[in-house]
Amino acid sequence: MIREISSPQNKEIKQLLQLQEKSRMRRKENTFLVEGRREIQLALKGGFKPKSLYFCPDLASLEQLALQLPETVKITRISKEVYDKLAYRSSTEGVLAVFKAKKNALQNINLTSENPLILVAEAPEKPGNIGAILRTADAANVDAVIIANPKTDLYNPNIIRSSVGCIFTNQIATGSTSEIINFLKEKNISIYAATLQASKVYHQINFTAATAIVVGTEATGLSQAWRENATQNIIIPMNGEIDSMNVSVTAGILIFEAKRQRKKAP
Amino acid sequence: MIREISSPQNKEIKQLLQLQEKSRMRRKENTFLVEGRREIQLALKGGFKPKSLYFCPDLASLEQLALQLPETVKITRISKEVYDKLAYRSSTEGVLAVFKAKKNALQNINLTSENPLILVAEAPEKPGNIGAILRTADAANVDAVIIANPKTDLYNPNIIRSSVGCIFTNQIATGSTSEIINFLKEKNISIYAATLQASKVYHQINFTAATAIVVGTEATGLSQAWRENATQNIIIPMNGEIDSMNVSVTAGILIFEAKRQRKKAP
Repeated sequence: MIREISSPQNKEIKQLLQLQEKSRMRRKENTFLVEGRREIQLALKGGFKPKSLYFCPDLASLEQLALQLPETVKITRISKEVYDKLAYRSSTEGVLAVFKAKKNALQNINLTSENPLILVAEAPEKPGNIGAILRTADAANVDAVIIANPKTDLYNPNIIRSSVGCIFTNQIATGSTSEIINFLKEKNISIYAATLQASKVYHQINFTAATAIVVGTEATGLSQAWRENATQNIIIPMNGEIDSMNVSVTAGILIFEAKRQRKKAP
Repeated sequence: MIREISSPQNKEIKQLLQLQEKSRMRRKENTFLVEGRREIQLALKGGFKPKSLYFCPDLASLEQLALQLPETVKITRISKEVYDKLAYRSSTEGVLAVFKAKKNALQNINLTSENPLILVAEAPEKPGNIGAILRTADAANVDAVIIANPKTDLYNPNIIRSSVGCIFTNQIATGSTSEIINFLKEKNISIYAATLQASKVYHQINFTAATAIVVGTEATGLSQAWRENATQNIIIPMNGEIDSMNVSVTAGILIFEAKRQRKKAP
């Protein structure tokens, strides 16, 4: 049974807009909106539970979209006018879905590999940087991404978009810095904190054992707790006028040095 | 002799706004606007010639700014109202300057090191990515950054801002892809083109001789000319669901692998 909504003034459409725009609403409803076919596919593949789907027949048919949806998902046909109101980007894929949020609790992280590689980012601010970090984490196939002291909820549409769906492909948790430090120590995972003051150059570290690479904000770096609890503080040597790299670039250099070493390791 | 402008309707102020907003105007005038004390300092240090300076005494005095300006620079005191109209970001440094643009010609690149390391980016689109690439190039102290087939002029205020001034600290040139390939070949600089189809893993390459690392756009990768003329096409192995990293992250991983090897080389 497919319903139809043609008016942008419809109450349900207004609620979807709120879900998109307001972090508070996402938290209250414990749901979030995903736009685009590939993103919806990745969310399904990542085990996220869809609640409802909205498609615009002017842009795509359900057959073309070819999404594997559970029967419980409420499907609604929407007019082009409604779609344009909801669509966040200028693509014309014609499909959006509401998913149930995951808890992202540290305890839910499932580490199956013997020597996990984990990327921790403390208080990243810009959605574009968070998206780039999640893409790097996906490409490197890290065991988990952990966001310490998050500044925003992860289901912000800007993060979903700039991650090109990698928000759904990584195992992600959030927590306070102290919770995460305890978690890593309990699991005997070495903590390598990227700081500008460290004396140990990053490529002199052996990253082949269980490793967490931790990066801070561009403005203030990592908090003292990380620097004090690190197995080793590490630095990327910089020789320029400014010595300030983008945080997602820093994370990429460190994670792929770990990957390089692991590739070579027996 | 310090002049004063208090009205945002002043003709000169309107021209400055045009310079900020329109690439066409920057090209026509061969000048561009720089905002912020550190950015102006870096432009001066980078050998850019200032033409005029505008400061808002409500926010900063000339003494506080302590800029080393040639005597020919026309200095203007502007009201807070004028400053707010011109200021591109929300900082309150209270200073802007007009500089003469550089030609950014390939022939002007001065390679003093025996084994130069050059970063080439083909047709990068987002100012944020260009800024992050320039920050990486500064930190790695590469010999030059070359933009192939540029999509935007380099003095776009978004690029200056997101580069945190690294647009002025790097030796930068622009040119067509074929001009740049000829330039590199003439100078016997090996071309390593990052592609998704390459079979050679990047960390198996010896980057210690004269090296150009070339990255393409996220959407379409490098053009065929680069792939055909490369000394070697290289790949960063990716093992995720998406296999698409941010272009500035890709550049950072490759450039710092070259730096790592050069650090170790005798």
